Amino acid sequence: MSHKLSRWALPAGIDELLPEQARRVEQLRTALLHQFHVAGYDLVIPPLVEFVDSLLVGSGRDLALDTLQMTDGLTGRQLGLRADMTPQIARIDAHSMKPEAERRLCYLGTVVRARPDGLGGSRTPMQVGAELYGVAEVEGDLEIISLMLSQLKQAGVDRIVLDLGHVDVFGELAVAAGFDDEDEDIARDALQRKSTADIQSLLAARQIAPPLANALTLLTQLNGEWSAVLAKANVVLADVMTPGMQSALDRLAIIGSAIERNFSQVDVLIDLSELHGYHYQTGLVFAAYAPGLGREIARGGRYDDIGEAFGSARPATGFSLDMRELLRFFDGSGVKDPVIYAPADYADAALIAAVERLRATGRRVVMTTQPVPAGAPHLVRQSDSTKDLWHLMGDTNHG
Amino acid sequence: MSHKLSRWALPAGIDELLPEQARRVEQLRTALLHQFHVAGYDLVIPPLVEFVDSLLVGSGRDLALDTLQMTDGLTGRQLGLRADMTPQIARIDAHSMKPEAERRLCYLGTVVRARPDGLGGSRTPMQVGAELYGVAEVEGDLEIISLMLSQLKQAGVDRIVLDLGHVDVFGELAVAAGFDDEDEDIARDALQRKSTADIQSLLAARQIAPPLANALTLLTQLNGEWSAVLAKANVVLADVMTPGMQSALDRLAIIGSAIERNFSQVDVLIDLSELHGYHYQTGLVFAAYAPGLGREIARGGRYDDIGEAFGSARPATGFSLDMRELLRFFDGSGVKDPVIYAPADYADAALIAAVERLRATGRRVVMTTQPVPAGAPHLVRQSDSTKDLWHLMGDTNHG
Repeated sequence: MSHKLSRWALPAGIDELLPEQARRVEQLRTALLHQFHVAGYDLVIPPLVEFVDSLLVGSGRDLALDTLQMTDGLTGRQLGLRADMTPQIARIDAHSMKPEAERRLCYLGTVVRARPDGLGGSRTPMQVGAELYGVAEVEGDLEIISLMLSQLKQAGVDRIVLDLGHVDVFGELAVAAGFDDEDEDIARDALQRKSTADIQSLLAARQIAPPLANALTLLTQLNGEWSAVLAKANVVLADVMTPGMQSALDRLAIIGSAIERNFSQVDVLIDLSELHGYHYQTGLVFAAYAPGLGREIARGGRYDDIGEAFGSARPATGFSLDMRELLRFFDGSGVKDPVIYAPADYADAALIAAVERLRATGRRVVMTTQPVPAGAPHLVRQSDSTKDLWHLMGDTNHG
Repeated sequence: MSHKLSRWALPAGIDELLPEQARRVEQLRTALLHQFHVAGYDLVIPPLVEFVDSLLVGSGRDLALDTLQMTDGLTGRQLGLRADMTPQIARIDAHSMKPEAERRLCYLGTVVRARPDGLGGSRTPMQVGAELYGVAEVEGDLEIISLMLSQLKQAGVDRIVLDLGHVDVFGELAVAAGFDDEDEDIARDALQRKSTADIQSLLAARQIAPPLANALTLLTQLNGEWSAVLAKANVVLADVMTPGMQSALDRLAIIGSAIERNFSQVDVLIDLSELHGYHYQTGLVFAAYAPGLGREIARGGRYDDIGEAFGSARPATGFSLDMRELLRFFDGSGVKDPVIYAPADYADAALIAAVERLRATGRRVVMTTQPVPAGAPHLVRQSDSTKDLWHLMGDTNHG
């Protein structure tokens, strides 16, 4: 959205929603919350502001850089504006609610980022998401991915590309190579950029030999249609395969085949070098892409460790998306009843009653001291009537 | 709400809403937004964070002290977390939308206050409100007060005390007394506390003689049932009456009589020493009180000047309330469909279809790897059937 440059311009990446857009946001919000409800997900509303320690638990440097901070005058401690609601929901599951074997929570609210999300991106995304706790099995991954795809579908995204990854494939190779944290960051970054050259120079520096070196280099090529990638991975990783890697590949196979069967409008891809996000992922990671959008429309994955700091380490998986991005695909209902005008005579009890009756049926009635706009439906006083003094005139859309 | 004291406690005055409370908040939110819609009010969504200059326009020191600030890394300017949405809506009316003779806007969102709102009060109220622009006449005041009362009524507040005031009565007396800004603050504060002694010591220091001194002192007693207060005010202020004061008293009379007629559950009071709020009020001020709540449940008034700084000075009146306070009175619908359980078998297309059909009717279906809780409705595979393989069993609440 563009704003006039002036003293009252909003900060870059921060915008406001005017009536037309706010109306569509509300419609989309209602649809998303309904879908969460029927899938068994309970809404929770975490605070906008918390102590920074809590907001950043289990997450990496990226989230710290994204979190605007201020000093709390009451406690003297550092407060942070939430930049991601996932750690908040984990805190609620582990710390605020009584233990339950499985828990399904959803959330929806504005987050604030110190840095814009990409070029010209928003610093105040409306984050919507769901988290499933307590289900370690592949069924948990399938439930969350299915929920995400259903939400995208009902919001109007008719073609979706689902990109699957699994952090354990790279993770096990990194352990085998003896990478320290810094090496891992370098390798991760090179894989993200699909830079074979950077991977190879790291491997040379650390004197990593084949077949491990080949496997790490080939990761950059292990992306494409899910079943083809898995077939190739089982071959090129055969010499370095660990039980953890095999289990990751098997899980990806179950997910690829179930999603392909249940969602006809979704193309399933696998990318074994994709390791995005705030680094709290611990297993399956995924992202959904929509036509015409340069980056993902939704993303998620496992982060089984995140609750540990809050005193409850247990399986967790979830997804989130920015409702403002989704709004590009959402049509909403354009049908609007015409406004009914009435005079602003608060001393006329019969008029007040007539206005209240119309509003109770969902009609929009504006009481005004201004003249009625030409052609607009309006309430007229009929002096010859003995009972209902006020009549609705000119309401062509309604009988 | 109380929280366990621990490393992960939330800051004082900041809380989170767990499922049961969040569900009621959502129901109340939907009801409030519907009522705004039928009354002709359009929702706008202003940003959580803005440049501090914009957030504090036209307001006093109180709002500045309530506004948490931080430095924007992108621009180097000071950002503020909104502590009150009223100035934001004024900016939107004056600066972001094309001019219109009358405008009706509503808003709903969390604000963050550096200081708690009263003892044990919240620092993150959910502010809900409406603003009417362009109507200077008493009809504007009546529309906003009626809207506020309708919202309180539908939220479950069955007895309401409406307290009316008008800043021009004190304002004109202060001008006549030749008060400077500091004197005015002292007098305002003394009136707020109904401290006759403090008023009298100020009057003595400034050598204010009767009848002005009497009038200012008697302001502390001009409160009670609306028609009685007006009758008394017209007598005790007679010697110092200005056209502005008379016009204020006349407006209060019109409002008192119309509200008393249209809202049978409302007691209308007038308090001419009540001058609450962030000091941007310019005419009528009002507050609504509900049984058992120590402070007002909603408040509002005129602030005709607030848009001036944004390039559009025009009549403005509005009200706001904290949705969390209103929640104490709101029952919501307690009726909940029992959750239907289904096995988490994503490879079974017939099961997936059965779950989707149920969810499409609004039923809540949880697919789980856990055993079905005793007595809960669930989907069962019937191997003898040729068509619909999955049947709903144990759904006693539904035929």
